Amino acid sequence: MSTTATLDTVETRIADLVSTFVRLPQGVRLDESCEPILQATTHQAVTSSEGGKRLRALLALDAYRALGGDAGRERRDAMLDLSCAIEVFQTAALVHDDIIDDADLRRGKPAAHKALAGPDHDAALGVGLGIMLGDLLATASVDIANDAAHRLPSADAINRAFLTMHREVEIGQVLDLAAVHCPMADPARLARTSLDVFRWKTASYTTIAPLELAMLAAGYPPEQARSCALDVGEPLGLAFQLTDDLIDVIGSSSATGKPVGGDIREGKRTVLLADALAGATDEQRGELIAVFEADARTEAQTARVIDLFHHTGAIERSRRRIEELWRRSLDAIAHMPADDDARRTLTAACARFVPSVHYTPREPGSM
Amino acid sequence: MSTTATLDTVETRIADLVSTFVRLPQGVRLDESCEPILQATTHQAVTSSEGGKRLRALLALDAYRALGGDAGRERRDAMLDLSCAIEVFQTAALVHDDIIDDADLRRGKPAAHKALAGPDHDAALGVGLGIMLGDLLATASVDIANDAAHRLPSADAINRAFLTMHREVEIGQVLDLAAVHCPMADPARLARTSLDVFRWKTASYTTIAPLELAMLAAGYPPEQARSCALDVGEPLGLAFQLTDDLIDVIGSSSATGKPVGGDIREGKRTVLLADALAGATDEQRGELIAVFEADARTEAQTARVIDLFHHTGAIERSRRRIEELWRRSLDAIAHMPADDDARRTLTAACARFVPSVHYTPREPGSM
Repeated sequence: MSTTATLDTVETRIADLVSTFVRLPQGVRLDESCEPILQATTHQAVTSSEGGKRLRALLALDAYRALGGDAGRERRDAMLDLSCAIEVFQTAALVHDDIIDDADLRRGKPAAHKALAGPDHDAALGVGLGIMLGDLLATASVDIANDAAHRLPSADAINRAFLTMHREVEIGQVLDLAAVHCPMADPARLARTSLDVFRWKTASYTTIAPLELAMLAAGYPPEQARSCALDVGEPLGLAFQLTDDLIDVIGSSSATGKPVGGDIREGKRTVLLADALAGATDEQRGELIAVFEADARTEAQTARVIDLFHHTGAIERSRRRIEELWRRSLDAIAHMPADDDARRTLTAACARFVPSVHYTPREPGSM
Repeated sequence: MSTTATLDTVETRIADLVSTFVRLPQGVRLDESCEPILQATTHQAVTSSEGGKRLRALLALDAYRALGGDAGRERRDAMLDLSCAIEVFQTAALVHDDIIDDADLRRGKPAAHKALAGPDHDAALGVGLGIMLGDLLATASVDIANDAAHRLPSADAINRAFLTMHREVEIGQVLDLAAVHCPMADPARLARTSLDVFRWKTASYTTIAPLELAMLAAGYPPEQARSCALDVGEPLGLAFQLTDDLIDVIGSSSATGKPVGGDIREGKRTVLLADALAGATDEQRGELIAVFEADARTEAQTARVIDLFHHTGAIERSRRRIEELWRRSLDAIAHMPADDDARRTLTAACARFVPSVHYTPREPGSM
């Protein structure tokens, strides 16, 4: 299992890779009037990259080791870079996501497009530079992955899997924007749609791609890597997003850097909302729909919705959903072509994504 | 030289590649409430891809053939796809560029983020989907290039050159946003800054990358491909952008799909403006600075600026700049490791980028 030392290594390596990528070639001299904005952007590339939990990189690294990936120095370094590339891609996606949501904060600091608006608070400049920063980081992620892939087995398959991850997240973001139109009158449909969004927007790069890339780097054939990564990673990624949504309602603000109830305040159509609508009385349902159809929600309304999420059984229902999905991941791990030690390590690595679930480890192969 | 038939082939292939990339895998069923927005986005991916002049694809194809690229079916098809990938990347960049500039039109049709605002004119939705469409097309371009590279010599070098192109354009866009702060009081600095922006934002993917990719695909060693592409492509790309800016002032609106004087109306700091400031009387200079420092420009002011561009000699100065840059490209072509036939074809392919210049073809090797 990865340790705090691994986390430090990942953090340092990401900063190195990103700052190298955004640096201009030596000998290029630009007019001094361009310097402040160019420097602000390259500085923000590193700032935006800092402070993630690195769950995705750690999953990829742990899965690689668990599944017998070559422990030689060169291969380990390449696998570290590939894992960092996933994190750099996440930062790219978050920078664009924050523009789309017009979010103020990210990881407890100003969102990139807010920071880039500069001392004059030039919102249009901030958005313009933010779009470009996201583009630069997305290119950086492919470049880093591409470079790492050449030092690992199955370079082609790794490059393809990395681009598939990009594509799935981008489609997921489109689905997320489309899901706002899903009618609240049909809670089952609303829950299904939210889970579709989770599959594409979150599970794709959070759990599926780290597992798939680790298996490819460890030498598994591409088809097997893809199917195992989907079997384990899809339910795990959904469970992770459900957990994240649950923490948003019941968790502490220090844990996520976001205030409690943020999703409700934004009017997000979550699975929690769908489950609350499904378990609500007619009166409660009417109240929820009115609150979520409004342009904005007050603090009092947000608190009331949290109460309703409890009273309608939605919180409990989400916990059961998470347990059920986690159980599916465990079953898939039990079926993986790996030994018992590998399955145990992999189980522990996957369990990081569902901190709210007190799972009972099974004996490998007992199912 | 490429013909109209080549242009049709490029156009059809781009539509095929883009629509394949954005299509969801078979068997994926999403809630019907998501369908209209998802379909609008995938449809817009193709619409935004239509109707370019394809100068970049044609340069890559002509250079590949001129420089002795393998004429076998498989290699030719791969080179076609690689050339299309450059065009798909351009579309990705234009979609984001139009959001940054809040442009209404592109290639005579509504800009992507305007079209995606939908029947409700939901500007935030349009921008959100537009950002994602640009991201999707950027990923598509890398995916298409990657796939083509594997069917050509120097796959690794082609992938790297393609990502370098992405990176340079993204940095160029940041420089463009920064250049707004370049002071008009120093016209020489303003001109130099604009030319820096042209190098990164335009020449990178318009002329340098198509030449470099064609040379790599034709089997030239990476260092030689890069240095020849820079020698020929950098001045050619600058000449192309100067020509484009000149057409914006003196050309017909039917040729570009944009009304005359658009750059002036937007207050763009161009080389033409720098040259006008350099050649102006004190009174004219004061007038130009006042007009360009204002938040907006009227039709009358735009017409007056066009007059001043003529009277200060800026138009004539731009023509001379274009001729001088074109001469540098011709000299670089004369030094290329290729035979006379190849140089002639390459010269004709490059001449497409400077339609306003009536160049005198030299005898190859005569300089």
